[in-house]
Amino acid sequence: MSQATSRTVYVNGAYLPEEEAKVSVFDRGFLFADGVYEVTSVLGGKLIDFDGHAARLKRSLSELDMAEPVGTDELLEIHRELVARNGVEDGLIYLQVTRGAADRDFAYPKDATPTLVLFTQSKPGLAENPVAKTGIKVISIADQRWGRRDIKTVQLLYPSMGKMMAKAAGADDAWMVEDGFVTEGTSNNAYIVKDGVIVTRHLGTEILHGITRAAVLRFAREAQMRVEERPFTVEEAKAADEAFITSASAFVMPVVEIDGAALGEGRPGPVATRLREVYLDEMRKVAI
Amino acid sequence: MSQATSRTVYVNGAYLPEEEAKVSVFDRGFLFADGVYEVTSVLGGKLIDFDGHAARLKRSLSELDMAEPVGTDELLEIHRELVARNGVEDGLIYLQVTRGAADRDFAYPKDATPTLVLFTQSKPGLAENPVAKTGIKVISIADQRWGRRDIKTVQLLYPSMGKMMAKAAGADDAWMVEDGFVTEGTSNNAYIVKDGVIVTRHLGTEILHGITRAAVLRFAREAQMRVEERPFTVEEAKAADEAFITSASAFVMPVVEIDGAALGEGRPGPVATRLREVYLDEMRKVAI
Repeated sequence: MSQATSRTVYVNGAYLPEEEAKVSVFDRGFLFADGVYEVTSVLGGKLIDFDGHAARLKRSLSELDMAEPVGTDELLEIHRELVARNGVEDGLIYLQVTRGAADRDFAYPKDATPTLVLFTQSKPGLAENPVAKTGIKVISIADQRWGRRDIKTVQLLYPSMGKMMAKAAGADDAWMVEDGFVTEGTSNNAYIVKDGVIVTRHLGTEILHGITRAAVLRFAREAQMRVEERPFTVEEAKAADEAFITSASAFVMPVVEIDGAALGEGRPGPVATRLREVYLDEMRKVAI
Repeated sequence: MSQATSRTVYVNGAYLPEEEAKVSVFDRGFLFADGVYEVTSVLGGKLIDFDGHAARLKRSLSELDMAEPVGTDELLEIHRELVARNGVEDGLIYLQVTRGAADRDFAYPKDATPTLVLFTQSKPGLAENPVAKTGIKVISIADQRWGRRDIKTVQLLYPSMGKMMAKAAGADDAWMVEDGFVTEGTSNNAYIVKDGVIVTRHLGTEILHGITRAAVLRFAREAQMRVEERPFTVEEAKAADEAFITSASAFVMPVVEIDGAALGEGRPGPVATRLREVYLDEMRKVAI
């Protein structure tokens, strides 16, 4: 990896130098993408919305009839231990659970032990990302993913391809479109704002149930902003006053261009800017 | 794993005991399902249609802008070496290529070295599978996979789920249905036979371009059988005289029941039985 000093990585109960952090080639995460994940941000050495991520992890595991490798309390301890061992002040903790290793067979193995892997990514100044002052550009692409995007699986090849399509087009990310409506970004939920109303797609199997999305919508409603959870088109987005995305690592990030068309005045709008401030302020207060 | 003696597994140039066959947790095959695979059958210690699998592998890699880890000649040598080291008479060779290990980022890494893993599964009497004499039962399920099924990626969670749905329903496999038409089985192509005409879905992004499918259709045409490559519905399948699947590990396998309805007389039909014989006879002759 590119970091100067080796990180400590957690693999099935062991804290290992990253060079030794390995899984069996028979792991179903490797052979079948039979695994789920979470990414929790760290600000000031504390975890942002750990409970939300732990709850979604449980749901993902349950939807796939996958066992929980450890309880929530132990999971929290592992998160904290990794933050401490790697001296993470600002950054991310990535967690992955797979169904475990077994000789290759499409049918689930009867006796596999789930694999649990966690690692950190240090990102100094994560919350002060200067891109939030200028905003990002997105392109629209067809949504080619599988049908159960509400389960946070590691089947991330298409989002990766989407990110590369965006780069090739000189943009930062891609919004995926299905049946004429935007579903979400490659690794974030998508929003537009028109006449003061925040519009974002309703929950369902078509999108990830963003942990950051839930918190941001709660803060928006508490601030008396109007929120509509419904599908919207790319055309509607292009005609919006502003747009933004939310994710655990980007928090609230303004979108200033869609398919080459500038939104509003082509700079971050007041709603996105305000929600980013509120989200970071409020979440830091309850970080653990 | 469950085999009595440890297999030898190939990982990036090394022949290792399976207990030591590991990949980095940062491998994109593990984190993003950013990998492709092939399964080649072995009969009498020889490889069936190696050239077909090698050609499809190249296409999969090319579609994903992924580098070839080794050339075709070296790949053949590795296959043969594994067959020899593991004393495989009849069985399968599984091959997986991933984009390699890199710190986690949706964008493709610039400098990752592709990961190449191969292992064998010994299946004595693979071609004499007694199930071919009685046939298999399938159920129909919605096709929830991603849109590029012509690329043989390791995004196999939904096919795994489909296999479990079939088991729960007392069946052997599931045929997936999209927009009213059968796409394919969980890990095989699907066919029906009506009034002597073999019907199987046309090639496109909706199905895998089966290596066994190509050979079987060639043999069918050489035997003056009529073949129609077009979509068919579950209702059409239920009303067919017979049905079957093809794959590298099942060869040609009769289907005798769909969603609980027996096909024809509820036993393997003459077309499937004949094609299985021809396929095995002809492919053994040119095995390498």
